[in-house]
Amino acid sequence: MNAELIAVGTEILLGDIVNTDAQLISQGLSELGINVFYQTVVGDNPARLRHVVETARDRADIIITTGGLGPTLDDLTKETLASVFGKKMALHQPSLDRIKGFFQTIGREMTPNNEKQAWLPEGCTVFVNEWGTAPGCAFEAYGKHVIMLPGPPRECNPMWKECAMPYLYKFAGGCIVSRNIRVFGLGESNMETILHDMMAESKNPTIAPYAKTSECFARVTAKADTPEECEKLLAPVVEKICGLLGEDVYGVDVDSLEQVVGDGLRARGLTLAVAESCTGGLLSKRITDVPGCSVYYLGGVCSYANEVKTRLLGVRKETLDTVGAVSPEVAEQMAAGVAQALGADVGVGITGVAGPGGGTDDKPVGLVYISVWHKGRNYTRKMKSMNGRDRVRMQAASTALDMIRRNIF
Amino acid sequence: MNAELIAVGTEILLGDIVNTDAQLISQGLSELGINVFYQTVVGDNPARLRHVVETARDRADIIITTGGLGPTLDDLTKETLASVFGKKMALHQPSLDRIKGFFQTIGREMTPNNEKQAWLPEGCTVFVNEWGTAPGCAFEAYGKHVIMLPGPPRECNPMWKECAMPYLYKFAGGCIVSRNIRVFGLGESNMETILHDMMAESKNPTIAPYAKTSECFARVTAKADTPEECEKLLAPVVEKICGLLGEDVYGVDVDSLEQVVGDGLRARGLTLAVAESCTGGLLSKRITDVPGCSVYYLGGVCSYANEVKTRLLGVRKETLDTVGAVSPEVAEQMAAGVAQALGADVGVGITGVAGPGGGTDDKPVGLVYISVWHKGRNYTRKMKSMNGRDRVRMQAASTALDMIRRNIF
Repeated sequence: MNAELIAVGTEILLGDIVNTDAQLISQGLSELGINVFYQTVVGDNPARLRHVVETARDRADIIITTGGLGPTLDDLTKETLASVFGKKMALHQPSLDRIKGFFQTIGREMTPNNEKQAWLPEGCTVFVNEWGTAPGCAFEAYGKHVIMLPGPPRECNPMWKECAMPYLYKFAGGCIVSRNIRVFGLGESNMETILHDMMAESKNPTIAPYAKTSECFARVTAKADTPEECEKLLAPVVEKICGLLGEDVYGVDVDSLEQVVGDGLRARGLTLAVAESCTGGLLSKRITDVPGCSVYYLGGVCSYANEVKTRLLGVRKETLDTVGAVSPEVAEQMAAGVAQALGADVGVGITGVAGPGGGTDDKPVGLVYISVWHKGRNYTRKMKSMNGRDRVRMQAASTALDMIRRNIF
Repeated sequence: MNAELIAVGTEILLGDIVNTDAQLISQGLSELGINVFYQTVVGDNPARLRHVVETARDRADIIITTGGLGPTLDDLTKETLASVFGKKMALHQPSLDRIKGFFQTIGREMTPNNEKQAWLPEGCTVFVNEWGTAPGCAFEAYGKHVIMLPGPPRECNPMWKECAMPYLYKFAGGCIVSRNIRVFGLGESNMETILHDMMAESKNPTIAPYAKTSECFARVTAKADTPEECEKLLAPVVEKICGLLGEDVYGVDVDSLEQVVGDGLRARGLTLAVAESCTGGLLSKRITDVPGCSVYYLGGVCSYANEVKTRLLGVRKETLDTVGAVSPEVAEQMAAGVAQALGADVGVGITGVAGPGGGTDDKPVGLVYISVWHKGRNYTRKMKSMNGRDRVRMQAASTALDMIRRNIF
């Protein structure tokens, strides 16, 4: 059983948006044990869309489209798929009623072009869209399964999980289960060198190394008839890899460093406050990406200007005047200062040069000092990154989270 | 002249990463006037990769691959492309020297598998990789142009712009120029209704509406022989659209709301400070995404806990006790308080329920109050979003930026 994803949208081919739907759906298909061999993107062009759909029909068992279900003139997915698979279109009254209700709720007038969204291939299974206006749908024809979902990720995402995945579940043959071993502090090629012999020998489970922004992970994937058999294959391999990679492993099947640090603080009853200069709120944003973080996270100060460092965080003016804002001393005073100002058990201070401007010979772009304060003691690190503003900021925030994990937990 | 993009990587088919390279390259090709009709993703599988490359060779003039140039066992792009186009592989000594130097700079040992990255198709144009280890390359064969770039976006992005785009420039026939009219405060279907007649009539330039998270934009695209002729076609259409959409247009060909707000503050000599509760640092992060923001941005306070609101921002305890943290009064006190605490001309306060937990009948998930303070006066808005934690936070931060623009500029 294999699937092909077809994203329909000139806006993807023009580069206006990125195809995140393909990622989401691929992840889900992998969980269902359905292989994805190809993802294709094609524009809002009936002839080329038809060509792509016919190609997919010839090589895939399941075709999943995203996009082109909307109200505008160039939304043609349903019409084209219906035509390729010999289906008529019909008005689906419950969908039309829903769309009308949606516009009433948000207090906007429903323009007539929205009615188009309630026309669907005759006899299809309708996927109700609780997150937007265009319903999705599924049908079987010529021995193939066709699923159509809206393009906007905030609609596609929940509809995939709550409508399409359950629909597909019955067709999934066998089972694939993966474990992601998340690593911080080790490059991808170093990790691969450590795991090389295991990777070369492993057929089931397989082991694959991946790089992510400022971190990497090893994915271990087992195939078997049942989830339980997959688990049996996975357990010893995951244990061995965690042993080989040691403290650089920050979690298995965890969402993120911020989730792991949050769980650790919660378990220990500790509260956290952060003071950021060059990361500008990114660390605070990442900590609060985790729902329920208010249990352990008190808040933070973004001290972009030096006056904010002295006024709110108690950084000493003489320190700023002598060693400068980008220094281990200021990072330490920021960490201790924000913990004291907010009454937190753990404080973090980050100061550095994110770039592209502001670098000097002495303090080049990419230089960042990070300090974690806990129980009167500072743990401080110097970090140097070479890869542009966004990456410097991301790596600094990740390093701060990693330092909490390594030093406090 | 048309191009096809092929991303090589099982990690994309498994959904481990999203194909941002395709977006970047498509944007650039659009600028060069080269059409992209298809983007394809295929796994680290020699037979299927070969099949996809052969299909692309038959329907495209330019083939651009991303990924599969790395050091690990499953990186097979160069070998497969060379084979399809009848090229031998050869060791490129300058690339090997560079890779060795890279590892020395970052102070990590170069594992032997890295040498593989310096083997390239004989006679190709080598694209030096200043941002990582794997060089890219380009060659012509069988009347087609082939370009190969590394997969990690932080390498692919600059190499596309600095190596591949100049290489391709000479093949570009004609010219496409686009203008993006950025809109906040109007939904995509409302915008389309306003622009419907213009869209239906326009052939060159074309007009297309797009939705983005919490905003939308209209893209106007002209084709002509020279950039100057494109500009002449664009100017009157852009002017007419801006007139029709009025104040909801926040800029044309601008990067983002945060860029527009930053430019406006800088031009007026005003400084900004922000106080965030439910957005948790996201607004501060977005403001500091803009390089050079230290001219107008002093900093911010993330007051997640109520004690932080009273301690650092001077929010009155009686206000918290009577109307609660999620209220227009607290948003206003936060905005005024952070401006005073940091000595800024403009202050922003955001307080709300991002969810998924914490909602009540009275104050449901998605309810956010936003206030902008300037010269002793508060401008305050109630916002209600229906679409989950990330979107509530994003929309609240965008609304705050939009309110600065509308009320202060």
